[in-house]
Amino acid sequence: MVKTHIKALLQESPRGQVVEVNGWVKTFRSNRFIALNDGSTLQNIQCVVDFEKFDDALLRQIATGAAIGVKGNLVESQGKGQAVEIQVTELHIHGKADPETYPIQPKKHSMEFLREQAHLRVRTNTFAAVMRVRSALAFAIHQYFQKNGFYYFHAPIITGSDAEGAGEMFRVTTLDARKPPLTEEGEVDYREDFFGKETNLTVSGQLEAEAYAMGLGKVYTFGPTFRAENSNTSRHLAEFWMIEPEMAFYDLHDNMDLAEDFIKEVLRYIMQHCREDLEFLEQRLLDEEKTKPQTERSDLALMDKLKFVIDNQFVRVTYTEAIDILRNSKPNKKKKFQYIIEEWGADLQSEHERYLVEKHFNCPVILYDYPAKIKAFYMRLNEDGKTVRAMDILFPGIGEIVGGSQREERLDVLLQKIKDLGIEEKELWWYLDLRKYGTAVHSGFGLGFERLVQFATGMGNIRDVIPFPRTPQNAEF
Amino acid sequence: MVKTHIKALLQESPRGQVVEVNGWVKTFRSNRFIALNDGSTLQNIQCVVDFEKFDDALLRQIATGAAIGVKGNLVESQGKGQAVEIQVTELHIHGKADPETYPIQPKKHSMEFLREQAHLRVRTNTFAAVMRVRSALAFAIHQYFQKNGFYYFHAPIITGSDAEGAGEMFRVTTLDARKPPLTEEGEVDYREDFFGKETNLTVSGQLEAEAYAMGLGKVYTFGPTFRAENSNTSRHLAEFWMIEPEMAFYDLHDNMDLAEDFIKEVLRYIMQHCREDLEFLEQRLLDEEKTKPQTERSDLALMDKLKFVIDNQFVRVTYTEAIDILRNSKPNKKKKFQYIIEEWGADLQSEHERYLVEKHFNCPVILYDYPAKIKAFYMRLNEDGKTVRAMDILFPGIGEIVGGSQREERLDVLLQKIKDLGIEEKELWWYLDLRKYGTAVHSGFGLGFERLVQFATGMGNIRDVIPFPRTPQNAEF
Repeated sequence: MVKTHIKALLQESPRGQVVEVNGWVKTFRSNRFIALNDGSTLQNIQCVVDFEKFDDALLRQIATGAAIGVKGNLVESQGKGQAVEIQVTELHIHGKADPETYPIQPKKHSMEFLREQAHLRVRTNTFAAVMRVRSALAFAIHQYFQKNGFYYFHAPIITGSDAEGAGEMFRVTTLDARKPPLTEEGEVDYREDFFGKETNLTVSGQLEAEAYAMGLGKVYTFGPTFRAENSNTSRHLAEFWMIEPEMAFYDLHDNMDLAEDFIKEVLRYIMQHCREDLEFLEQRLLDEEKTKPQTERSDLALMDKLKFVIDNQFVRVTYTEAIDILRNSKPNKKKKFQYIIEEWGADLQSEHERYLVEKHFNCPVILYDYPAKIKAFYMRLNEDGKTVRAMDILFPGIGEIVGGSQREERLDVLLQKIKDLGIEEKELWWYLDLRKYGTAVHSGFGLGFERLVQFATGMGNIRDVIPFPRTPQNAEF
Repeated sequence: MVKTHIKALLQESPRGQVVEVNGWVKTFRSNRFIALNDGSTLQNIQCVVDFEKFDDALLRQIATGAAIGVKGNLVESQGKGQAVEIQVTELHIHGKADPETYPIQPKKHSMEFLREQAHLRVRTNTFAAVMRVRSALAFAIHQYFQKNGFYYFHAPIITGSDAEGAGEMFRVTTLDARKPPLTEEGEVDYREDFFGKETNLTVSGQLEAEAYAMGLGKVYTFGPTFRAENSNTSRHLAEFWMIEPEMAFYDLHDNMDLAEDFIKEVLRYIMQHCREDLEFLEQRLLDEEKTKPQTERSDLALMDKLKFVIDNQFVRVTYTEAIDILRNSKPNKKKKFQYIIEEWGADLQSEHERYLVEKHFNCPVILYDYPAKIKAFYMRLNEDGKTVRAMDILFPGIGEIVGGSQREERLDVLLQKIKDLGIEEKELWWYLDLRKYGTAVHSGFGLGFERLVQFATGMGNIRDVIPFPRTPQNAEF
């Protein structure tokens, strides 16, 4: 079949040459002007039909959403709004779209409505733009790591260990749900399950990535991760994609340098490769924000926000410094925070992160050296005995976008830590092996891909930056 | 910390310049020569220590698997086997590896043993090479599609539909395993499960990819897929990665052209970018095959096999032609096949595929136009009313590596098909919508990533080309 794309056609010089193209009708005006789109670009190509030369029955089938093929001459456009157009000589209807029932009509639809039509919403300009940017970002991520000597590593999705404790897990099973086999003690007998043990969906590929970093040096994962948490918010998904680089011989500061360079580079990539889509999304956001009170609008337009991140050094602040700032802040003194910061050791809530990022520093912030008690067991204990080499990167409007740490590479310290937490050594036998044999300083971080896509596209709800979102009570499609 | 990699060091001209590098000891000979590797390349760098200048206690810690850092002068090597070496002036032990207990000693280990040490096996030359090739192949795949106007699309992993019927599925649940909530009829009440319905791990992202192709034009997935089948073979995994491109306005022949071009291009990429690792794997395979009887050895060495695929056109044969060839073949007439081919309509077993690919054509083969009865419901029915526009690509030594089809785009035909199969319409409401609104010819295929890695690396068992394999009774790590 015809393989020309509209993206390529729009770049040709119009010399009356015969062209053919397939796509979907966006609009059909005055029984004459078809705006045709094929997904290759945000732009439509204008196809002009002389209604006197075509059968009425055929023309009546040209409606928003119909798939058609056209053949004609590419000429300079007479009208404004486009440089070229096709003067149609042949027209074929691949598939109709009944205007009475087709849900995606050329008018404004609510995001909620479009989520219910997730199989069709990519036919709107907004979702097509978001998904093209998403695709470009994913590629930029691969390219960044491959260029910098990292190897892509596929962490297992089904996991037999639940030691990381990053969150509630989904059970994966083939046992009879109604009547599972039982042990003599009356417990479910997972020895009869598919894997001969209880298994879950991974919450992170980090521990396995550490094993690979200790052989290949620098690796990264890019795969789905899962949280069975009943969080019905605009920032949480039960299934989301995560990028987790892990590097041997990197300390916490190397880790921060990498994370900052990485984020800037992938944003730079989309600024170069997705300008049209980003301009559209910027305008969409401006329009959306017009409906909001002044105080809730962004200071910067979308692309200015991206530029700001690319051009400015992230501020690096220790947890201890941040606590001081927060304790002395107006909202803390005036008890405007929901959680008042009183003592060192308090866990930071998103209101505090937002204050630091959006009010105090007005810049992406890397917070590091957190209290050991509020962070995971595998993070390296500092010499002070109470903080660990953790770092979180906080973004304006998004909150935590990266969480990372230098890992505890000392076997004795790690053993004590898991003992204190009541984790069984045999659960982590292979992870401990990494400290027994050829252990070394190493670090890594995790970046929630959808959070990054949100930031890059300005979409307010995380459900609108992934094709088919999975959330509590929702696994449609 | 020091960021120099051995891969870069080995390319420097030795001028006695001071260099620093970290890595793991491969071997330590004569209390003098350390072969150091950091995973960046197959090659080690030789580090020469003058044992008179270092403490005995320090030297005793230099053993296979230990992580060390060295500083010294990069000079032309005195010995043979390497161009440059480091004359060590400073040496730091990051982490020891007790030779009494460290499992990965410099000797030949069985693949079975290494599977039990999957967290350490990447420290062997073989697995490091396989995983570097795997990473390069994955990147080549992304690059191919991105260059050719495809958008990367993340299909959902947790799925509420089980209509595809590609295989047995894993259930995903947060219900109490011992005492699930029951309906009045005594069935498990999935309304109380996390997603409010029964959910499973995806067996394919194709149906969702079709929805996206009908908006973005050309998309591809690259994600994990799952089969809960009790197949303990060297060709099956319960969790594996699949690539599924899906293209609007592509018919079956366009689909074949794409698949063939795609496979050749990604193999070409690793021939260019992974030569050293491929040469090593080729030698490994030759050594391994020496232990086998002549008849079981490959005709071609690994890289010749890759070249053969790259340089030759895949043979395209209809199922009907293939049946004729098989029916008249020696093994069929002499009843050497386990399943004798008697009639048109028979499903092909791997013995038949191997005969076609390895004996008859001696070339990758694309089989197409299969009987409708042995193929999935979504494949487009041919005008003959009995075959569908399906295609499988068969590779020597691997068997089916690609399975694809032109999709049934006609609503009435599809409705009849799912009715005949007893699939409920409401299960597929959104998939049917794609045929109601703007339907068009479209096609796609699925490629099992691990099968491709097997072919590219010559590894005989699929468990040895994925970091942490999931198979029946096995979800360790």
